Amino acid sequence: MSDRILATYRINAPETESKVRAEALATEQSVEMPLAAVTDPRVLQEIVARVEAIRPHGDGFEVVLGIAPVTTGHEASQLVNMLFGNCSMQPEVELVDVQFPTGYAKAFPGPRFGIEGIRKLVGAPSRPLTCTALKPQGSTIEHLAKLARTFASAGIDVIKDDHGLANQAFSPFAERVPAVQRAVDEANLEHGNRTIYAPTFSGGPAALAEQVRIAKASGVRMALVAPMLVGLPVFAELVCDQLDIPVMAHPAFAGANRVAPSVLLGTLFRLLGADATIFPNHGGRFSYSRATCLDIAAAARRPFSELAPSLPVPAGGMTVDRVDEMVAGYGADTMLLIGGGLLSAGDRLGDRAREFVKKVAAAR
Amino acid sequence: MSDRILATYRINAPETESKVRAEALATEQSVEMPLAAVTDPRVLQEIVARVEAIRPHGDGFEVVLGIAPVTTGHEASQLVNMLFGNCSMQPEVELVDVQFPTGYAKAFPGPRFGIEGIRKLVGAPSRPLTCTALKPQGSTIEHLAKLARTFASAGIDVIKDDHGLANQAFSPFAERVPAVQRAVDEANLEHGNRTIYAPTFSGGPAALAEQVRIAKASGVRMALVAPMLVGLPVFAELVCDQLDIPVMAHPAFAGANRVAPSVLLGTLFRLLGADATIFPNHGGRFSYSRATCLDIAAAARRPFSELAPSLPVPAGGMTVDRVDEMVAGYGADTMLLIGGGLLSAGDRLGDRAREFVKKVAAAR
Repeated sequence: MSDRILATYRINAPETESKVRAEALATEQSVEMPLAAVTDPRVLQEIVARVEAIRPHGDGFEVVLGIAPVTTGHEASQLVNMLFGNCSMQPEVELVDVQFPTGYAKAFPGPRFGIEGIRKLVGAPSRPLTCTALKPQGSTIEHLAKLARTFASAGIDVIKDDHGLANQAFSPFAERVPAVQRAVDEANLEHGNRTIYAPTFSGGPAALAEQVRIAKASGVRMALVAPMLVGLPVFAELVCDQLDIPVMAHPAFAGANRVAPSVLLGTLFRLLGADATIFPNHGGRFSYSRATCLDIAAAARRPFSELAPSLPVPAGGMTVDRVDEMVAGYGADTMLLIGGGLLSAGDRLGDRAREFVKKVAAAR
Repeated sequence: MSDRILATYRINAPETESKVRAEALATEQSVEMPLAAVTDPRVLQEIVARVEAIRPHGDGFEVVLGIAPVTTGHEASQLVNMLFGNCSMQPEVELVDVQFPTGYAKAFPGPRFGIEGIRKLVGAPSRPLTCTALKPQGSTIEHLAKLARTFASAGIDVIKDDHGLANQAFSPFAERVPAVQRAVDEANLEHGNRTIYAPTFSGGPAALAEQVRIAKASGVRMALVAPMLVGLPVFAELVCDQLDIPVMAHPAFAGANRVAPSVLLGTLFRLLGADATIFPNHGGRFSYSRATCLDIAAAARRPFSELAPSLPVPAGGMTVDRVDEMVAGYGADTMLLIGGGLLSAGDRLGDRAREFVKKVAAAR
């Protein structure tokens, strides 16, 4: 086990260039200046990233760098900077794996609830979980509350805001969240369910602090946050210092970074505090492969220092007829998210929502 | 002039699919559910994004969407969400242009100092500006202060931290910044220069607030921030509410988003408050083309609502022998950043720094 952070990059360039490019990458992701001009031997020894391995891969090659933990300041923004700051501007370079040395993760929040905490919250100790979304943005608060009531009555475990529902004029957070939470609470009381509502937290730190306050006052029990939209260090700080409820990460704006989805949506979001992580499942509206999706789920759940596992949430155009296949693929420690696939039922929304819940319960 | 935000996407797919994909994109970047299931006519009319144009482009095609401003909440994270949230997860889609309707930019900070404000600060009303970086990270504070003194004595306009100098154990912000600022102040006094020091602000909101406090107490007069590392809404809030000094944006972690560099580093960073924007110049360590670089500079400086122009800062492996060519290419309203290209002079650092300053002054 190395004492360095081991970051694997896939480089789409001829293998004949591998040694030169590997050394250049190591320099770029640490001291970012010609090594010949570095006069301090301690910097050369302890700060400059090391080329730990080079191996062929397809038409190109992979490079494993050993990054000195001290250069990351044990903090989210600098960690990302060292992993993929400048090399993000090299189109042929992709970050495909990160492994952290023993103890490194202690400086980060990690999931504070994890899969077990979410299971306790919704009262589902072993089966897969169900999730849907309030849509579309632009709807009146009355409409959203009514939708929430329908979903909660059907016994769906988690109702999240569409991530497009943020703090816009048509349904500001301060009005929407109490109204929807109230609707969910009433439906839970009436039907004996434990449906959770997860509103979208968005904007800058001042706005987020206000939303945290409102959510606490309304009895909200889960948060939806897009780490790449609010910013990774803000996300970590929100988890650490402000929210005492589980956090579900949304991948908006997280897709185009040439960072492998398993690394960003799995490893890094988990490290920064996501208890659950939404990703676009294969065969839906997005083109991630099945292998990529299984990698994301693996990164979310496999042993990782002392971090609790995160709940993978396959999403993005899913439909009720895919429940069996998804549970077979991801296992029980998953939350299936179907949004438009419920709403397309129109008047039969309640029926389809109940069907969703039943199929998942039966699909173990 | 449209009342909608006009976002142009380049889609790498067969032109025969253009109509279907354009409609799908419009849905994805607004209501994100099947249109047939949207029952509210107001939502269909005012919220759903419109396909304004489709045109062939290379082997694929371009789509212009009209995005309703209200969906962005006139706020940074939601703006980015609507522009490139979910479609960031579609590898064939790239955001290549954004135009805002009249008045939209008013809700955003924009550059509060702009090119003119930076010129006033350094006392250079018409010539191009010079910038260098304190490197490498891992150096002692004593070493960094000595470097800063050398650069300030040579009359370089702006000395920025290497963006790898954040808040790590080897040179914490609280100790480094006062020491370097002091060294710069002393050199300025001795040589009659007006060199500015721009330290790196990094981390979460609590850390940033503390850094702002320290910087104010030390008389720091410019800030270096990587918007994609701290988070875009945090960046905007920092500019708006906390910093009363010009802000230079660094492109770390900003490269891999399939958002055209001119849009992200130019238009969006400027909208959110960057007075200056660093980008990797062609022919250096990065492979952006000359055309891309000119686009970035154009986006930073062209008329944009009432926003002040941002200073383009070409960087990334530049050398003193390229000064004439860079000034010829970008014009006088530019700040040239040379880092490793000065440090590689070793003992002759002071001489090379002075040569840099002289060449730029002569290169008008």
